[in-house]
Amino acid sequence: MTVGLSIHDLMTPVAVIDETVMANNIRVAQDYFDRIGRNFRPHIKTHKIPALAALQQAAGAKGINCQKISEAEVFADAGFTDILITFNMLGAARLERLKALNARVDLQVVADNAVVVEALAAGFQADRPLKVLVECDTGGGRNGVQTPADALHLANSIDACAGLVFHGLLTYPKPASEAGVETFFAEAVEMLNQAGLACPVVSHGGSPSLFDSALVASATEHRAGTYIFNDRAMMRAGMCDVDDCAMHVIATVASCPTETRAILDAGSKALTSDLLGFTDHGLMVDYPDASIVSLSEEHAVVDLSGSVARPQIGERVRIIPNHTCVVSNLFDKLVFHRNGVVTRMETVAARGKVV
Amino acid sequence: MTVGLSIHDLMTPVAVIDETVMANNIRVAQDYFDRIGRNFRPHIKTHKIPALAALQQAAGAKGINCQKISEAEVFADAGFTDILITFNMLGAARLERLKALNARVDLQVVADNAVVVEALAAGFQADRPLKVLVECDTGGGRNGVQTPADALHLANSIDACAGLVFHGLLTYPKPASEAGVETFFAEAVEMLNQAGLACPVVSHGGSPSLFDSALVASATEHRAGTYIFNDRAMMRAGMCDVDDCAMHVIATVASCPTETRAILDAGSKALTSDLLGFTDHGLMVDYPDASIVSLSEEHAVVDLSGSVARPQIGERVRIIPNHTCVVSNLFDKLVFHRNGVVTRMETVAARGKVV
Repeated sequence: MTVGLSIHDLMTPVAVIDETVMANNIRVAQDYFDRIGRNFRPHIKTHKIPALAALQQAAGAKGINCQKISEAEVFADAGFTDILITFNMLGAARLERLKALNARVDLQVVADNAVVVEALAAGFQADRPLKVLVECDTGGGRNGVQTPADALHLANSIDACAGLVFHGLLTYPKPASEAGVETFFAEAVEMLNQAGLACPVVSHGGSPSLFDSALVASATEHRAGTYIFNDRAMMRAGMCDVDDCAMHVIATVASCPTETRAILDAGSKALTSDLLGFTDHGLMVDYPDASIVSLSEEHAVVDLSGSVARPQIGERVRIIPNHTCVVSNLFDKLVFHRNGVVTRMETVAARGKVV
Repeated sequence: MTVGLSIHDLMTPVAVIDETVMANNIRVAQDYFDRIGRNFRPHIKTHKIPALAALQQAAGAKGINCQKISEAEVFADAGFTDILITFNMLGAARLERLKALNARVDLQVVADNAVVVEALAAGFQADRPLKVLVECDTGGGRNGVQTPADALHLANSIDACAGLVFHGLLTYPKPASEAGVETFFAEAVEMLNQAGLACPVVSHGGSPSLFDSALVASATEHRAGTYIFNDRAMMRAGMCDVDDCAMHVIATVASCPTETRAILDAGSKALTSDLLGFTDHGLMVDYPDASIVSLSEEHAVVDLSGSVARPQIGERVRIIPNHTCVVSNLFDKLVFHRNGVVTRMETVAARGKVV
């Protein structure tokens, strides 16, 4: 068994999660939302593990957020009953699965266009209607209706469908754009009120926005994923310190071909190529002046020219990834530890659930 | 059953492989190596599927190339007996597994430094020695000894170990650097000859170098992976045309929030963030003037401002990924088809084998 081993005895590369740090991240976020009196709905994309969502729910979270039907099914199977899926649903096979899921959990989905609303409307009836939020593009530049008037228009379309219930508004915002989000939401809510449409949910989101959620006064809930583990991008955003990062990828120095170059046994299959605006591929905690300048699938090339400290061949190094969510998706299991002693392994149950 | 369905009826995103194109890619590469009289050792990293390696071997390939012990074990279990692992092996647990593997297949590994040679030497005995190639950095800037003299020095160290057999030289080259590779190899082979060390294998590699392998006269074998599927990076390298790309990721247009922005349901969990020098994330075959400007985990944001043709919400689009190998690693199964009709599904058996 792996439980009880030191994480330093595990084969590399391996993604490890510090239980203490994770528990603290869960608590601090939930405390914030309890304090401002707002529902918190964690996004499971970061961990994809039912046991971790259970910790988030036990701390006080209201339901969970999934991105795909296949993820939601994994969590429904694990006993979760309040699920929001934040991606437009299209295609006959997907709608069949959505209908089956709606029959067994309290489900909400999103729509940002008439084609999706029509497809949903064709699949659901009034005896078991589907709750639909209108996704709004408040500046994030991804999905979403472009104006509050468009939100009202789509809400009316949803309300006109027997099998659908308009349930509210949702955004995935640009970071640090709370004022703009509030302007959009407040205007849309006012238009909905005047039209006599109830809007029970106004859902704000994002880990970088988490502790500024109160600035969006119209919001009733917040969704976030990354905060549970944190990562280098969250550090850059000023949302956490290096000691608040629960996930490390442990790698071994496999070669030092030159004085200033080291090669790690963790490449894009362990760290992913997600740069998230960085120019290198993760933070080597014990060699902060070293830079992971390139990745192949199984190699990380480290430039040591800026680092007085130089790791040795065979040495194990800890890396905080740029983006923790995408790392979880690469490993079949995550290893949990307390003070470096393995406490448990968890299968990443919703890994690779792309549809 | 999925077999017999149209690929256009599969849920998206999905990675599909055109059997005809793949078979042609296998044949053309093998024909080239047969013609120049050189062994060809496909790298399984691109597909990670034993049934595909069997096709490569049936076409004439000599053995296979894996990158990690865990991959090699999958292929040994599937009956492959001639396996080269091209990554330095370190750590007690890994060496135990390497020893077990060497007992049941004809195994070769690499080393580029004394620490690795010493670790290997401690684990193997003369009754079942391990074949070791010296990895050379001929300009690729990853692993490898830096000079032919260093290659000779390490070869001598290997030769001095009772449990190890020096078996030759290997490089993963910088693209289009055949002259430099040949200079390095020729000099090293000459030094080995003078030292009386046999050097049965001189292994060149890379799909971008595939059809220039003859320019490295000293080489006895070539290793390549990507050529079996091809991708956008291979097109850019002039190694294939759009019709030679066997892999497509099929995605659905889920939203068109503005006139010039479309959102696909395939993000970095389907396409990966590997840019490989491109500035966008794959080629939309039917919309070549559109650009996938950013990826989230489940979203691709497409800029249509340069494209007269505009896809509709609900439309399915085909994407040739920048880098095919990393896409295979994200999917549990790949779907194969002939003229759009599904022929088989194959489990990506060595997916996620990181150690």
